[in-house]
Amino acid sequence: MALMETGKYSQGSVLGSVNPDLASERQTASFSVEKLTAWLDGGAEQTRLRRAVVGVIESDPVFSRENQYFQSQNERYEAAVRKAVHLQKKMHEMGWSENGPEFKYIYRAVAGDVAFLLHRIFMRSISMLGSDEQIAKWIPLASQYQLIGSYAQTELGHGTYLQGLETTAVFDVTTQEFILNTPKISAMKWWPGDMGRSATHTVVFAQLYIHGKCYGIHPFIVQIRSLQDHSLCPGIIAGDIGPKMNFEHIDNGYLMLQSVRVPRENMLNKFCEVQPDGTYVRRGSQKINYFTMTSVRISLISGEAIPSLMKACTIAIRYSAVRRQSKLKPGEQEAKILDYQTQQEKLLPQLAAAYAFHFINDYLQEVFDRGYREIQRKNFDTLPELHALSSGFKALVTQYCTSGVEICLRACGGHGYSLLSGLPSLYTKIIASCIYEGENTVLLLQTARFLIKCFMAASTGQSIPPSVTYLAATKAGKCPAKNKLDFLRPDIYTEAYQHTAVRLISSTAAKLQDLIQSGAKKHDAWNRCTVQLVQAAKAHCHYITVKNFVETVEKIETKAGIQRIMKHLCDLFALHGIFSNTGVFLHDGYISGAQMDMVTASYLDLLAIIRKDAVPLVDAFDFTDKSLNSALGSYDGQVYQRLYEWAQKSPTNKQISPAYGKYLKPLLHNRLSKL
Amino acid sequence: MALMETGKYSQGSVLGSVNPDLASERQTASFSVEKLTAWLDGGAEQTRLRRAVVGVIESDPVFSRENQYFQSQNERYEAAVRKAVHLQKKMHEMGWSENGPEFKYIYRAVAGDVAFLLHRIFMRSISMLGSDEQIAKWIPLASQYQLIGSYAQTELGHGTYLQGLETTAVFDVTTQEFILNTPKISAMKWWPGDMGRSATHTVVFAQLYIHGKCYGIHPFIVQIRSLQDHSLCPGIIAGDIGPKMNFEHIDNGYLMLQSVRVPRENMLNKFCEVQPDGTYVRRGSQKINYFTMTSVRISLISGEAIPSLMKACTIAIRYSAVRRQSKLKPGEQEAKILDYQTQQEKLLPQLAAAYAFHFINDYLQEVFDRGYREIQRKNFDTLPELHALSSGFKALVTQYCTSGVEICLRACGGHGYSLLSGLPSLYTKIIASCIYEGENTVLLLQTARFLIKCFMAASTGQSIPPSVTYLAATKAGKCPAKNKLDFLRPDIYTEAYQHTAVRLISSTAAKLQDLIQSGAKKHDAWNRCTVQLVQAAKAHCHYITVKNFVETVEKIETKAGIQRIMKHLCDLFALHGIFSNTGVFLHDGYISGAQMDMVTASYLDLLAIIRKDAVPLVDAFDFTDKSLNSALGSYDGQVYQRLYEWAQKSPTNKQISPAYGKYLKPLLHNRLSKL
Repeated sequence: MALMETGKYSQGSVLGSVNPDLASERQTASFSVEKLTAWLDGGAEQTRLRRAVVGVIESDPVFSRENQYFQSQNERYEAAVRKAVHLQKKMHEMGWSENGPEFKYIYRAVAGDVAFLLHRIFMRSISMLGSDEQIAKWIPLASQYQLIGSYAQTELGHGTYLQGLETTAVFDVTTQEFILNTPKISAMKWWPGDMGRSATHTVVFAQLYIHGKCYGIHPFIVQIRSLQDHSLCPGIIAGDIGPKMNFEHIDNGYLMLQSVRVPRENMLNKFCEVQPDGTYVRRGSQKINYFTMTSVRISLISGEAIPSLMKACTIAIRYSAVRRQSKLKPGEQEAKILDYQTQQEKLLPQLAAAYAFHFINDYLQEVFDRGYREIQRKNFDTLPELHALSSGFKALVTQYCTSGVEICLRACGGHGYSLLSGLPSLYTKIIASCIYEGENTVLLLQTARFLIKCFMAASTGQSIPPSVTYLAATKAGKCPAKNKLDFLRPDIYTEAYQHTAVRLISSTAAKLQDLIQSGAKKHDAWNRCTVQLVQAAKAHCHYITVKNFVETVEKIETKAGIQRIMKHLCDLFALHGIFSNTGVFLHDGYISGAQMDMVTASYLDLLAIIRKDAVPLVDAFDFTDKSLNSALGSYDGQVYQRLYEWAQKSPTNKQISPAYGKYLKPLLHNRLSKL
Repeated sequence: MALMETGKYSQGSVLGSVNPDLASERQTASFSVEKLTAWLDGGAEQTRLRRAVVGVIESDPVFSRENQYFQSQNERYEAAVRKAVHLQKKMHEMGWSENGPEFKYIYRAVAGDVAFLLHRIFMRSISMLGSDEQIAKWIPLASQYQLIGSYAQTELGHGTYLQGLETTAVFDVTTQEFILNTPKISAMKWWPGDMGRSATHTVVFAQLYIHGKCYGIHPFIVQIRSLQDHSLCPGIIAGDIGPKMNFEHIDNGYLMLQSVRVPRENMLNKFCEVQPDGTYVRRGSQKINYFTMTSVRISLISGEAIPSLMKACTIAIRYSAVRRQSKLKPGEQEAKILDYQTQQEKLLPQLAAAYAFHFINDYLQEVFDRGYREIQRKNFDTLPELHALSSGFKALVTQYCTSGVEICLRACGGHGYSLLSGLPSLYTKIIASCIYEGENTVLLLQTARFLIKCFMAASTGQSIPPSVTYLAATKAGKCPAKNKLDFLRPDIYTEAYQHTAVRLISSTAAKLQDLIQSGAKKHDAWNRCTVQLVQAAKAHCHYITVKNFVETVEKIETKAGIQRIMKHLCDLFALHGIFSNTGVFLHDGYISGAQMDMVTASYLDLLAIIRKDAVPLVDAFDFTDKSLNSALGSYDGQVYQRLYEWAQKSPTNKQISPAYGKYLKPLLHNRLSKL
């Protein structure tokens, strides 16, 4: 900590001693925070392990994020490389392996600010798409870091539509090589991480041409930089794509290929091969590719989206228990802003959502694991459902978490806008998750396509996957709630969500059929329904999230008040969803206006109830101060002192700006007319 | 432009020649873009003047923003000071004055990236709160830049609640001075612009104490830095508050005062005075203070919020007409993403909103000018309405524009996330407008308080201000629309908005009374209604915006197809509002479910209609490429070439990173086990 400039304000000793306004929040917890943490972790042993990993990482100064908010893009890149290299060393020292139990906690602990994440995707793609020989050749090199890999798929002109990629790989029978080219500027590879400045190799996706015929997109291993001096290889033009909203630590790069030749063996050929004479052979199922993206999207939900929302809630709720502003009752002390209904209504639904998503992640993981077992038995039947679930939930969760983080940021007022609060960087990072690994609207439309198919199948009596069986059991009816307490009954609100999802899916299916029957072309009819299809897909995912939360709460066996508070959060999540989307529930009169008033009343009542446990509920996420890296969100709640001390370290306070000598002094010392 | 590294991709000549995909959009405009621009400007003469000012500014290299996305906080501050000083010189040269017709275009032209904005607030506060002697002393010094002023109101612990400020100013009768102190860390001034590194003087707001009695908040002129060498004055601790989400060019600062003495004449004393013997005299009306904030909020709407949304729309819509991705029809060329319904549904409502807000700004300006004339005649009756309007619209417009910019950013996919798109900086800047000059929730509650008062007054037959007279004319009834075309009738949708606003205000008023009648304390009852009060205030402002848009369209006299396209935009704005808030219209059955389907159908139809004019509609905003500063949004639509060329200029491509020598080389040249 910087030394205070004057003794009077030097309350250095204050840091670490908990602000009484935060301490009092913890004394009245209705449940055991430690037990909730253990339950969220999947058992006390997991909590112990996680804390051990976090402890090792955070006590190592190389992993410090202390100056992160003050660094330039160049500095952040250098730090990320330093950390990535050091992490390998650390893991070696500690005996941690990629398959070990500690592994999943490591990236949480380093808080994502490391390089070489694409190196891992490079390895994964070779493992999945390469032959045994290719795996035997490349994986040891990569895992020993005798090369640094990247993954060059996206181009300037193409992201979501992979078939449209323009990079070419022409097979030259005479030399047994592929000749790779970037035929035009839009074909330039653009965005791949680790590629701008670090990678020596990359997997390039290109249109394969043999004897003038195009066989579509295939992956090729291409060396781009010298292993000796890191200079660009002949025919390679590469560099960094420049500043972004965040991810300054990653060298997202561009790559142009000018008649770059790679040997025939460099095409990853588990599923297809070009034989020496140019014969193209396809083998095995390509469906497995879906599974890769499924796994990536699910790990994104648990690894990026949910922790960001949990951190933002922790910061904003602790701050709101410490910040006092204006008087709620005349003559009294200024009130904690968390006591204002509007502040509760901003933050507590985000808290409930963080829990809801933690549980839906468990559900997705389970469905995924089950699917994986089936696939190992060569049964690919679950793939469409898995794809629909992972797409829809990737979109729903990243969208929800992004807006949740923004709400938390704004709920902290001006101080939330300071980078030192930690909230701006959480926001600028998580918003990218709405775009990468599948743009959310595109993904929701894929889920919608699955839903429409299933709905049609169900209506003709065919069997449909477990997550959508509810589509077959449609019934009209009205919501039976008679008073506001009825809306705290999970059966009541779950049914309302189900009803709404079915209605949106069935009405869109009907519109689609109407359009086609009245002569519209199929693709045109689809396009004209897409706004509603997106709504339907969201409603489906929202319903499953509520249902899963309810089932999770029912299964809770831990004592210590946990089930009660989880039930409140579940109710809040469900009623917030209705309160924020009243229209879809009112539309066909399933819920009446009078019932909606009951929903509102119960919803607002819940805010006041959960408010009492708000701080313990974020404490249970168990983020260390170092991982939050927030002047507002630290465990001790000494926000003003910390803001002041951290600001001292800013480069803007470390130099006399040249602006004084150059501009201010001449201005002040002369009359304007002499300028 | 950087030289291309290879001739093959050097399409430098391409820049400036319009991408055919954008050119074709312009050929089919249904109206005259130039005439629309002139109409928006308030006449062709204004357009000419604006372009002249922009031309002067943009042709001067000192005002260049070319490297803005690559600069550090220190560099941006220095550039902002350089520009501010140069701007004074430029204005002098050009004969532009603060009262001249060019003035309002200058800040649009420099795009806000200049220092000394708080210097102007310093001057404004002296002009409004100072006596004639004080004005005569300080204003010439300030306008000649013999000092640089700031405005120190906000403290670490207090923003919105001014009465809670903790800085003290104790009157010392013996020396005829005020002694200013920062009694604790939360009392430190925090956030004032121009204060961290530039200002020599500031207006400090402090609690006035005379003979031990507190008289509340008063403004004092305090010198904080030497006019000779810019060193901090005795008793002053000041510095920069560090990195923020944006505004890196502004030196937002902190300030602590340790027994700093200022003469009695330094308290701004137009409205109150401390006489030599310590007698406190209050004079005149303090209500005028409302008026200052009113003017600031209105200028924020027109100066910050609306241009940001217009720029974001320009960038995203031009890009969406150039970006092709995936096929809409099998066998055809890939489609422009603007042809996808989901993309239209993201962008076109933002475009309609930009127009709606441009018109509501005219309305607010007119109400404000009328109020100002009244106030000059010492009639303060319009102040409550003005305050309610400026508060509510500041909140509504900044909120809407912030989420609109975010939608535009995300609608551009990965490239929108690059700083070079211009969208991230628009977003990170505009989100601050939801917080500064009154936090939006607090402002909406002030509007709500006015609405509840007026509603109560109306129900007892008292007269109420013009903007809320509709509250008196409540009637039940149902929406009379019979088919989807009826929802293109302005009377139909305006009435729906009015009905909804009245219902939300009256039902919340009823809940408030119920709570009080059932024994709740008044402040507690108020707090328990605030979530709904915020909704009611928004509905009120939304209604006025729609009504004003309708009236504006009706009054259009220009030919050239402008009225027709404006009518479409008005319809779209109105129907988008219903489509996005179906619940409030369905709640009491004013609009039925079947009618809501008609709304949806008309709304989706409109998207396809307006899509045809989308590019001409953003062209009409008439932003230069330099003012957009966007690789995606330039007039010529050469997005890929520009992204590539701009990326070359990034500092990440200007050095071999030390990371290679320090970390990558040792890693690659050794086995991991030797690390």
